[in-house]
Amino acid sequence: MKINGTPMRTIRPGADGASVEIIDQTKLPHRFEMLTLASVEDAKQAILTMQVRGAPLIGVTAAYGLAFALRRDASDAALADAIALLAKQRPTAINLKWALEEVRRVVEPLPAAARASAAFDKAGAIAEDDVETCRRIGMHGLELIRAIAAKEPAGAPVNILTHCNAGWLACVDWGTATSPIYQAHDAGIAVHVWVDETRPRNQGAALTAFELGSHGVPHTIVVDNAGGHLMQHGKVDICIVGTDRVTANGDVANKIGTYLKALAAHDNGVPFYVALPYSTIDWTIASGRDIPIEERSSDEVLKLQGRLANGALVTVELAAPGSPAANPAFDVTPQRLVTGFITERGVAPATRAGLISLYPEQCESAA
Amino acid sequence: MKINGTPMRTIRPGADGASVEIIDQTKLPHRFEMLTLASVEDAKQAILTMQVRGAPLIGVTAAYGLAFALRRDASDAALADAIALLAKQRPTAINLKWALEEVRRVVEPLPAAARASAAFDKAGAIAEDDVETCRRIGMHGLELIRAIAAKEPAGAPVNILTHCNAGWLACVDWGTATSPIYQAHDAGIAVHVWVDETRPRNQGAALTAFELGSHGVPHTIVVDNAGGHLMQHGKVDICIVGTDRVTANGDVANKIGTYLKALAAHDNGVPFYVALPYSTIDWTIASGRDIPIEERSSDEVLKLQGRLANGALVTVELAAPGSPAANPAFDVTPQRLVTGFITERGVAPATRAGLISLYPEQCESAA
Repeated sequence: MKINGTPMRTIRPGADGASVEIIDQTKLPHRFEMLTLASVEDAKQAILTMQVRGAPLIGVTAAYGLAFALRRDASDAALADAIALLAKQRPTAINLKWALEEVRRVVEPLPAAARASAAFDKAGAIAEDDVETCRRIGMHGLELIRAIAAKEPAGAPVNILTHCNAGWLACVDWGTATSPIYQAHDAGIAVHVWVDETRPRNQGAALTAFELGSHGVPHTIVVDNAGGHLMQHGKVDICIVGTDRVTANGDVANKIGTYLKALAAHDNGVPFYVALPYSTIDWTIASGRDIPIEERSSDEVLKLQGRLANGALVTVELAAPGSPAANPAFDVTPQRLVTGFITERGVAPATRAGLISLYPEQCESAA
Repeated sequence: MKINGTPMRTIRPGADGASVEIIDQTKLPHRFEMLTLASVEDAKQAILTMQVRGAPLIGVTAAYGLAFALRRDASDAALADAIALLAKQRPTAINLKWALEEVRRVVEPLPAAARASAAFDKAGAIAEDDVETCRRIGMHGLELIRAIAAKEPAGAPVNILTHCNAGWLACVDWGTATSPIYQAHDAGIAVHVWVDETRPRNQGAALTAFELGSHGVPHTIVVDNAGGHLMQHGKVDICIVGTDRVTANGDVANKIGTYLKALAAHDNGVPFYVALPYSTIDWTIASGRDIPIEERSSDEVLKLQGRLANGALVTVELAAPGSPAANPAFDVTPQRLVTGFITERGVAPATRAGLISLYPEQCESAA
């Protein structure tokens, strides 16, 4: 998507054709800085320090990191070492391991001299595949927004609420939940986005607001407490969120607080959609009850990074010294509260039957 | 309640019998500092800058301010001027005007020489009345907690979730929603409180956690997004919140986000109680739909005060420069989601009939 009018991606090959450029997301939204990655150590560091974040983007970065490693040493031993090094930086990111295995599958049969170049190309192909998947999610979601717009008074925007950042900054381009929004905006449909701040890590206020603003999409940040009130007063036409994992029955694990917005949407007759690519469906888990929920550091609740008036970034503490905090990172929205899924293959009900209708071959292979 | 073992109130007569001491709440939770108020200007400043906050406490502070003014000049003109000055510092605080009128009613018939002393005594009586009201709210709420505790396994605490600060820091002592909690704790019932952070002003993390911790009540701060997840997993036995206004049908206006927690409580079969004194019921408004909701400055969403590692207090910005924000300060929880009201007269259903059963004389006078 665009940053101040210039098309941008979260990761792209450098002008030298050998390195890659990334956006340093640890500086957002306060500063926009690009970084060059040219070694496996660079890629490792970018993943570890969350200069890149979001499952698809982590996977692509790791794939490029593997290409860099093979450029230095393309032996089988070096390949195995580099995969092990990169995979352990974010052990719970399924996509990271998947992308590394994709590269391994391509390069393993090749002679050593051909491996680095093939890995670099494969990393680029994984990135392009993600862009196309997200583009297609947006194409299908756009039709939902278009249908709402057709019923609005002339000039009135479609009001969309989203939670956390399921945006292009978490992918390579387009994003998942944001892709329908960008495509509607680019198609000339008036949209306005309510951006949940998304405590504790503030990905909404920091990242989603930044990317929507940079592309020129009208939006307003609200605290996570506000969405129910907005829905009670008819100020939300549709909710679209992303997801970390969808279980076989259609339950949705996503950033903590998603469940509360789904309850409010249900209570006020507001459609609540979840945007996702095929890779997010976990056919091996029957329902959301069985999803383990990550408990993260209480520091994320008690401390917060912000920008002083002079532009310096500092971390401040919010509560009294010694106050304890708990930090469950995700919650599960039962499928009964979800209007439907928006995927790269189309829109379907949030049920096992709906998922099977979109992905019959996945279901069979999991059975 | 106690601060490090010492009984404390938010406002109390000074040792000289002429001034009053307050807790400077603008410094909480980072520093605990007492201030002395000895003039009407001191009282005005304390109300304006929110060194005192919470409807009951603002009223008591204004009443003392009026006594200070009369000590300097007890004429009818000075009385009228001081009331006008104090009332305009927080124009929407009904309780502020009510307390000033209570003092006026007492002093107006008196000779000038007797007015200042009578006003000082009346301010003290208003404070004592608030303490007694809150104590009785707690006495009735305690029985709800005791009943839950009786069903818990031995040693397991009753888990209570609260939102914002309806605590003793907003009153003179006990608080409203917190009064049952303190009384249960003091009675030896094991309790644990989930404290909603309460964005955007963080009154939960800053004030409720501070006062619970200072009194020794076990508690854990969570972001506002977390409560639904906690209730899904059986980690909340009862919700108790305060309210800014209850309408004649039992709808509840309270800090933004209360509605979302009520939805989650309803969805998970968790009892949801609202604690309030008689003065919070607005018999002139039929239902919550008619309550005007205050829209506050977007700066409260976009900026935040915190403590640097060196102890200095600074304000930081959270979002990208130029990101817009909206800040509705309250929401309305429909009475269908409220299990009951806890008042100084007892517990009743959240219905018009329930309110009338507690306050038959108020209903008649409003009709």
